[in-house]
Amino acid sequence: MLETKLISQLQKIAGKEAVLTSKEDLTTYSYDGTTTWAHMPDVVVLPTTTEQVSQILKLANENGIPVTPRGAGTNVSGGSIPIKGGIVLCTAKMNKILDINKTNLTATIEPGVVLQDFNMALAKQGLFYPPDPVSFFGCTLGGNVAENSAGPYCVKYGVTKHYLLGLEVVLANGYVMKLGGVTVKNRTGYELIMLFTGSEGTLGVITKITVKLLPMPPARKTMIAVFDDMEVAGQAVSDIMASGVVPAKIEFVDNFVIRRVEEMTPMGLPVEANALLILETDGSPAAVEADAQQIVDILKKSGAKDVKVAKDANEAAMYWKARSAGFAAVFGAAHTVMAEDVAVPRDKLAEFIRRLGEISKKSGFFIQFLGHAGDGNLHPSIFTDIRDKEQFARAQETMAEIFRAAMELGGVLSGEHGIGLEKQRFLKEAMDPVAIDIMKKIKGVLDPNNILNPGKIWEEGA
Amino acid sequence: MLETKLISQLQKIAGKEAVLTSKEDLTTYSYDGTTTWAHMPDVVVLPTTTEQVSQILKLANENGIPVTPRGAGTNVSGGSIPIKGGIVLCTAKMNKILDINKTNLTATIEPGVVLQDFNMALAKQGLFYPPDPVSFFGCTLGGNVAENSAGPYCVKYGVTKHYLLGLEVVLANGYVMKLGGVTVKNRTGYELIMLFTGSEGTLGVITKITVKLLPMPPARKTMIAVFDDMEVAGQAVSDIMASGVVPAKIEFVDNFVIRRVEEMTPMGLPVEANALLILETDGSPAAVEADAQQIVDILKKSGAKDVKVAKDANEAAMYWKARSAGFAAVFGAAHTVMAEDVAVPRDKLAEFIRRLGEISKKSGFFIQFLGHAGDGNLHPSIFTDIRDKEQFARAQETMAEIFRAAMELGGVLSGEHGIGLEKQRFLKEAMDPVAIDIMKKIKGVLDPNNILNPGKIWEEGA
Repeated sequence: MLETKLISQLQKIAGKEAVLTSKEDLTTYSYDGTTTWAHMPDVVVLPTTTEQVSQILKLANENGIPVTPRGAGTNVSGGSIPIKGGIVLCTAKMNKILDINKTNLTATIEPGVVLQDFNMALAKQGLFYPPDPVSFFGCTLGGNVAENSAGPYCVKYGVTKHYLLGLEVVLANGYVMKLGGVTVKNRTGYELIMLFTGSEGTLGVITKITVKLLPMPPARKTMIAVFDDMEVAGQAVSDIMASGVVPAKIEFVDNFVIRRVEEMTPMGLPVEANALLILETDGSPAAVEADAQQIVDILKKSGAKDVKVAKDANEAAMYWKARSAGFAAVFGAAHTVMAEDVAVPRDKLAEFIRRLGEISKKSGFFIQFLGHAGDGNLHPSIFTDIRDKEQFARAQETMAEIFRAAMELGGVLSGEHGIGLEKQRFLKEAMDPVAIDIMKKIKGVLDPNNILNPGKIWEEGA
Repeated sequence: MLETKLISQLQKIAGKEAVLTSKEDLTTYSYDGTTTWAHMPDVVVLPTTTEQVSQILKLANENGIPVTPRGAGTNVSGGSIPIKGGIVLCTAKMNKILDINKTNLTATIEPGVVLQDFNMALAKQGLFYPPDPVSFFGCTLGGNVAENSAGPYCVKYGVTKHYLLGLEVVLANGYVMKLGGVTVKNRTGYELIMLFTGSEGTLGVITKITVKLLPMPPARKTMIAVFDDMEVAGQAVSDIMASGVVPAKIEFVDNFVIRRVEEMTPMGLPVEANALLILETDGSPAAVEADAQQIVDILKKSGAKDVKVAKDANEAAMYWKARSAGFAAVFGAAHTVMAEDVAVPRDKLAEFIRRLGEISKKSGFFIQFLGHAGDGNLHPSIFTDIRDKEQFARAQETMAEIFRAAMELGGVLSGEHGIGLEKQRFLKEAMDPVAIDIMKKIKGVLDPNNILNPGKIWEEGA
């Protein structure tokens, strides 16, 4: 528990209504999109200005109070859970779009801007910001930077880090640091912006973000391909990537998702299919037409049972809704959903899918999966119940096997969700020990009192 | 001077023929593409393996000997000049292309691979690696990573850092650290790859690089636009960027370059023109056709006196040769060429060009410039002579004014060349002082004895 004096100091900084202490409020901020972890904070503060963030951090730093930065809490690796208690610093109310510049093709936003609100504002001006985590309806741009978020569009367009030009970051001691600017090229010193990107709130609190924009592609086309065999679908993705065409998105959903989505909202998905690829191509109308034809040809040649091109935007939207709903369907399927986030080389996708089948058979756990197949980034999930200790332990071991199978194929522990709490016990297997040591030392440089999101990424004392 | 014992230890590590000590050899490695600085090393070593690099660094670290990593020495900010003497560690002989994977769309190369050799190997397989510094005929990929190089293609495709997936880096103490891998997405811990990218050889020696590739665009088209007025050309660039089309390249050359190129190799360039834009669009044949038409229309509407679309690949190659030759023409134009590398927001290009005119008038120096207009990244040059102290001091002051004019417009000190020696006296004006302090502390973490490229980026004792 924090002293009453500190609570009243926080109230003085951010205003009474911005400081939450009731049990109900604290519970709301005790968990995030991850289902295996929760921890109560002592207090939640919702600042509205950079100056307030600076004063909150100064106070916390002087008193050694843990601070967990948080956007919308859509994180799925436990990064925004206040595992050490203390202050949850939620930037959701710093939600102004400060500038959209159509000629410079840049925008500056506050961290609490919801991605979808930003996308809508950009669309009005014919502009496009590609990184599109499936949580786009809720997630905030500050969280996107802290997690270096990605999504379906990243096959063609890259991830959040590829779009960052400038940051304002408040350091642990309250110093407001400005990095980068509004130019698309900048070679002034080390890439410090990249250091904060994906640092999961452990190095600073992001208070302003400048991103690079693109013109909205004038045309898009969505296709779906139905497969009897998941491995064949995986191979089809490799075939497309090797063919010279670059789809904007290549998403994979399995039979579990197809059935669940169809149960929730019947939309005529092929419930017997073992795998569905949902693809999009974008660009000029002529290019889209040609690319779509090429993709359809490859899909058929690669063994798709059925290939459909969405006849209009409504039909396309329906397929993408199925993909988004898949995410919800998976996370609502059990008390505890352990979702992996491995990425494998794109030419190893079919092999990895085969390995998942073997692991499922051996462990007895059904392994559901969907994901960003075009990036080799799959989200295999195991449905379990954390309250059943024996089963949960077996689920954890099975998850470890999945991760090790990915690593053996040249893959990585996390493609886009980050390490947080969920994957930190695997970090030593996934990363050079000296690199982990360097991370810790950099953390020590930027946050010597270890107040910023302590207990994340690496295991303590490890 | 290094002790004879150390020289023989280096010979034992890398072989006798890989250790250069003659005055002629040392002179060759005493300068780089920058014309204002030079310093003799004590010895040059050309290792061929990571293990040798590791042993060289271990030896240097234990004996406190400065090590300046070097690729081809095409650097234009002094980054590869051994300003403290000691060892030049040249990676030019580590020049194997280790893997090109067409399905995963990745390649792994050693640092000494020349960019053009890499491009040729990729082209055979229909693959494309976009970052294209104008020094591509000589520069090496290790240098490209250390400098986070960019070039004309970066308007559409981004810079070196956008393509890096994995690095092998030898740390100052000789430890061989592996970062990242061959997946296009990776969210395992901090972005340490980005920390080494653009660190100008001050944090480690890069010994292996894995990059993301793209399929080679099936079609390209080159256009040139002739302008009477440089500001109008600058505005035309802004107009194109705001129009929704994304050219692959938009390069700017001024009358000085047009005349010099025409003198060297007559190719029918318009010698009376005050500015020439050279543009390229790429993609599917249909998209290229449509984009080229849109660009031509905008150029005409924006006040171009003449617009030409290259009728074939030969004519296109001629225009791009003129652009490359421009670089050489500028650097050969005087004893000392001070080349700025500022970048301004793309909507401030015309305004910046106007300011350059004013600075030229006031200072009496002719200011030549060319550059990557689509990125707002210009290279204004002043022709001077470092041996004439009074004139050189005035040139330096004029350069400072150019930099400050860019900063006032929201621009940055360096768009792509880095800080090195050339721009370090401006660093304090260009970067948050706390950010500079963080860079120094990170340097302290990774290179506690300060052996790696000491004396670069920030001024010592400053």
